[in-house]
Order: sequence, then C-alpha cells, then structure tokens
Amino acid sequence: MTHLTPVEGNSRMIRMDADEIQELEAYANTISAAVEEELDTLLPNVDGNEEDRLFEAMRYSVFAGGKRVRPLLIMATNEIMGGNKKRAMRVAAAMECLHTYSLIHDDLPCMDDDDLRRGKPTCHIQFDEATAVLAGDALLTMTFEILSDVDTHPDPNVRMRLVALFAEAAGARGMVGGQMMDMLAEQHGKKDFDQGALARLQRKKTGALFSASCEAALILNGGTRDEFHRFTSYAKNLGLAFQMVDDVLDEVGDEAKLGKRTKKDAGRGKATFARLLGVDGASRQAEFLVQQAVDYLRPFHNKARVLDLLARFVVCRTH
Amino acid sequence: MTHLTPVEGNSRMIRMDADEIQELEAYANTISAAVEEELDTLLPNVDGNEEDRLFEAMRYSVFAGGKRVRPLLIMATNEIMGGNKKRAMRVAAAMECLHTYSLIHDDLPCMDDDDLRRGKPTCHIQFDEATAVLAGDALLTMTFEILSDVDTHPDPNVRMRLVALFAEAAGARGMVGGQMMDMLAEQHGKKDFDQGALARLQRKKTGALFSASCEAALILNGGTRDEFHRFTSYAKNLGLAFQMVDDVLDEVGDEAKLGKRTKKDAGRGKATFARLLGVDGASRQAEFLVQQAVDYLRPFHNKARVLDLLARFVVCRTH
Repeated sequence: MTHLTPVEGNSRMIRMDADEIQELEAYANTISAAVEEELDTLLPNVDGNEEDRLFEAMRYSVFAGGKRVRPLLIMATNEIMGGNKKRAMRVAAAMECLHTYSLIHDDLPCMDDDDLRRGKPTCHIQFDEATAVLAGDALLTMTFEILSDVDTHPDPNVRMRLVALFAEAAGARGMVGGQMMDMLAEQHGKKDFDQGALARLQRKKTGALFSASCEAALILNGGTRDEFHRFTSYAKNLGLAFQMVDDVLDEVGDEAKLGKRTKKDAGRGKATFARLLGVDGASRQAEFLVQQAVDYLRPFHNKARVLDLLARFVVCRTH
Repeated sequence: MTHLTPVEGNSRMIRMDADEIQELEAYANTISAAVEEELDTLLPNVDGNEEDRLFEAMRYSVFAGGKRVRPLLIMATNEIMGGNKKRAMRVAAAMECLHTYSLIHDDLPCMDDDDLRRGKPTCHIQFDEATAVLAGDALLTMTFEILSDVDTHPDPNVRMRLVALFAEAAGARGMVGGQMMDMLAEQHGKKDFDQGALARLQRKKTGALFSASCEAALILNGGTRDEFHRFTSYAKNLGLAFQMVDDVLDEVGDEAKLGKRTKKDAGRGKATFARLLGVDGASRQAEFLVQQAVDYLRPFHNKARVLDLLARFVVCRTH
C-alpha cells in the first residue's frame, strides 16, 4: 500500500540512463502504433451521413496523440503472463476509449475548462460543447461494446469480468467519484484538503484505471491472488507518483513541452501535491512510491523490465 | 416496419375507456414501485463523505418520477415469456439508469438547455453543470455494472448479450447518434430535414431503447427469431408514435400537466413531426403506427394485453 510520509535526503534516488529511456520509448512507440491501428479498425472513418460529426469528434480525441500509458500497462502485464497479444490489444483499445472519454468530459467548460490538450485544441474547442459531451458518452459506451464482443475473449466469463472491472473502476466509486471529489475540492479551496484526502482523490481519479489496466491483463490470463496483489499495488503507486509528478510539472514545467497550460490548478487555488508538499517534497514522495512499485514486481525478475522502466521514467520525465 | 404515409379519414380510430386506462395505470404503478425499490437498493443513500453529492445527484434524477415506460416494456415482455421477475427487474433498473443518464445530459445548457423536467428542476439546475455531467457518466457506467453482475442472470452468455445489446442501443449508432442528429438538425434548422430524416433520428433516439427493452426480456428468456421480430417491430412503432404524440403535446399540450415547458422545440425552429405533418397529420400517423404495433403482438392473444393497452394509451394520452 502507499505511504505518504515524505522521504528525507537525496532528491534523485532514481535515475535512468539514455539507453534505458530509449528502450522504453521504443516499446511505448510499438504499443502506441499497435493500439492506434486497433482503434482505427474499431472507430470507422465514415463519410456522408449525419453521424459523421460524432465519429469525427470521437476519432479526433482518440487520435490526439496520448502517451498510451494504460495500453502499455495492459500489454506489458499481458506479456509477463505470456498472454495472447490480439485479445490484450482489444482490451487496450477499450481502455483507451474509456480514458479518452474521461479527458473529453474533464476538459469541458463546466469542469476543468481546458482549451488545450497534448498541444491541440480540446474536443469542445475543435467541435462544440454538445458534440464533446456526446463524443465522450459514445466512447464510454463503446468501451463496453468492445469488451462484450466475442473477439475480445472466447470465454464469456472472462468478458463479463472485464466489463465488471471497467465499470467499477470508471464509475461513481472509481474514476467519476474521483473527478467529483476534485470538483468539490476546487469549490472548497485547499483549506479543507490535506495530503490524505488528495491521495484518496487521486487513487480514484488516476489510480483506478492504472490498476484496472494491470488487472485486465491478469483476468485475460487467469492471474493468481498474489499476482493481483502485486500488480495492483504496483499500478496504484505508479498512478499516485504519476499524478505527483504531473503536479510538479504543472508548477515548474515547460508549457511548450507539455502541450498544455501550466499553473492552471495552482492559479485556481486548487490543492495539488506540489502545493501541499512543496515541489521538492512531492518529487521525493513520487520517487518513494516508484521505489515501492518496482519492489512489488521483483519476483518477476527481468520479465517485468518494461514496467520497471516505466515506473522509473514516471519520476525522471520532464513532460 | 414503419410506414409514414399519412392515414386519411377518421382522426380517432383508437380509443380507450376509463376501465382500460385504470387497468394500465394499476400495472404501471406496480412496475414503477418495484423498479424504484430495486433502484433504491442499487443506488445507496450514503452520507458523510465527498462522494455524497454525486450519489445525491444520481438519486435525485433517477427518482424524479418518470413514467418508467421502458421498465414496463421489459416486465410486460418478460411476463409474456413466463420469465423470472427478479432478474427482469434488475435489467429494468439498469435500463432506467441508462435512460436517466440520457435525460440528464440532454437537459444540459449546451444540449437542449432545459431547466424543468417532470415538474422539477433538472439536474444541472438543482446541482450544477459539472455534477450533472458526472452524474450522467456515473449512471451510464452503472448500467453496465448492474448487467455484468451475476445476480442479473447466472449464465454469463446471457449477461454478455445484455451488455452488448445495451451498448449498441445506447451508442454512436443508437441513442447517442440520434441525439447528435438532433443537435445538427437544430443547427441546420428544419430546411434540410424531411419526415424520413426525422423518423430515422427518432428511431435512434427513442426507438433504440424501446426496442432494446423488449429484446432484453427476450434474451433473458431465450426468445425465438420470430419473437424478436414481432417485439422489436412493436417497440419501434411504439417509440415513433410516442415521439409524434410528444411533438403534438409540445404544440397543444398543457404545461402544468406535462411538467415541462411546451413549444420549446418549435420556438427554436426545430423540425418536429407536428410541424412537418401538422398536428392532425402527426396524430393520425401515430395512430397508424400504434395500430401496426398492436397487430405485431396478435399471436400472443390476451397475454400481450398490457402491451396492447400501452400502445393504445400512447395515442390517447394528454400528458
């Protein structure tokens, strides 16, 4: 489980050399290309009828060039388990539809009101608000359409467990619940919000889908209880560290490199880890979480290399 | 299939007497009470933590007193098939979550911008826009959580088919696609919109969930190909007639009785059946569709009585 006591001392206990970064990037690029090919098949590029605009908006946001972290978690975990690539790739595509829906709705004027994401206009800026709401709704719905299809896995019990997993992770007790806490936190200002509350919020908002990504790969391959424990612990720590570094980059990062506005959260008086722990404190805390995450996967030795690289990259990245 | 050629002559070929209306109302009230009890169990009334507001908003909209037409379709079809009531009731609750989500998002300022529904403030008026977006998202997600749970049906193949059915009916090629067409129709004005286009729009927007309601009950009970044909034809005709009468009531209905603003669609120059066919034309067309709907269920004789009453009520209702 995650501990949030700040770590004293050396501010860079985790390092990556250029070769390691290159190795991770090569893997990530392969996964990105493959999941985008899958999404391209699943999201038809139709022309000439009234629904065009809806599919156009769905495709616009899905292909806006995300980091595809969740697909990477699914595919890397699936590889450790020796699983079928084609099936895992469909699950990865479904996860990316789910993640994209959450970004589209989060960016809406009534939510985070962001006009830029990954260096491109957000969905409601490129299209309009109504189209953005509907494109998000359609992508959320499509997630379950993909998972329930026999092509995802021949065993209906496995598909059923995937649907249940995604719904629970995304719903009122998971991601949407986290987003609601986030909205309330903003309204209250940071005065009512301590580190524990912020961690709970982020475990739902980011952690739920990170964890569900690993769990999905385990469900596809009949993972053991111990494997579920190790991978979900890895994923939750990773998600929290990822959010902490995001907060740090929002404070000190380069807008051009990040492809989005910085200092937005802080500017609105929103509680962030960087504000609560300081930039150094949040960075060190993220390192500690990543160290723990990496430890959970030790029993898998070199098979878990990609997930080890990914975890370390989370705290070494500059954008 | 539906034909839209206006019917000449007598404007009231379908009638209902007071006893028949009372019989339908008694059945509808029983279903409403039962589905609300089911929803009350599924949507916990939690207190004292940050997610409260989200569940509060979900409950507010779910219990805002709808007609529960889709649950009635599910339960009545299930009864004709001699099915298990408890299972069908869970599917009915899931359908009502799906329907409620669509109403919450449809009412948003960037969509239909409605401040009143069923005589009560809409979700974004009672709470706020962000909460309404998230409550809708959570209800959509919860639909699939309910369906994937083993309590809905012990056979995972059946649950899987229900998830696939709901996702397809609700998604970009179904309800959300219809809503998108509706938005575009409003932007274009009615000049590009003929009766055929409007019928296509409504088959997606209303018809998809009406049809899926009957189909869900058939999936639960292993319906035959012929049964699927008859019930989906019934439901699609019913949905279209329902929308035509809604358009008529929007023109000539009583705001207090309807519990919502009237003449809104027309006021925005939106294409409606009442505008395209005239109030009399749309009423007669609705009667014709209902007559067809009733005919599809003739082989079930008196077992289909409730669905027969419901279809006739659609054209006889005044609110």
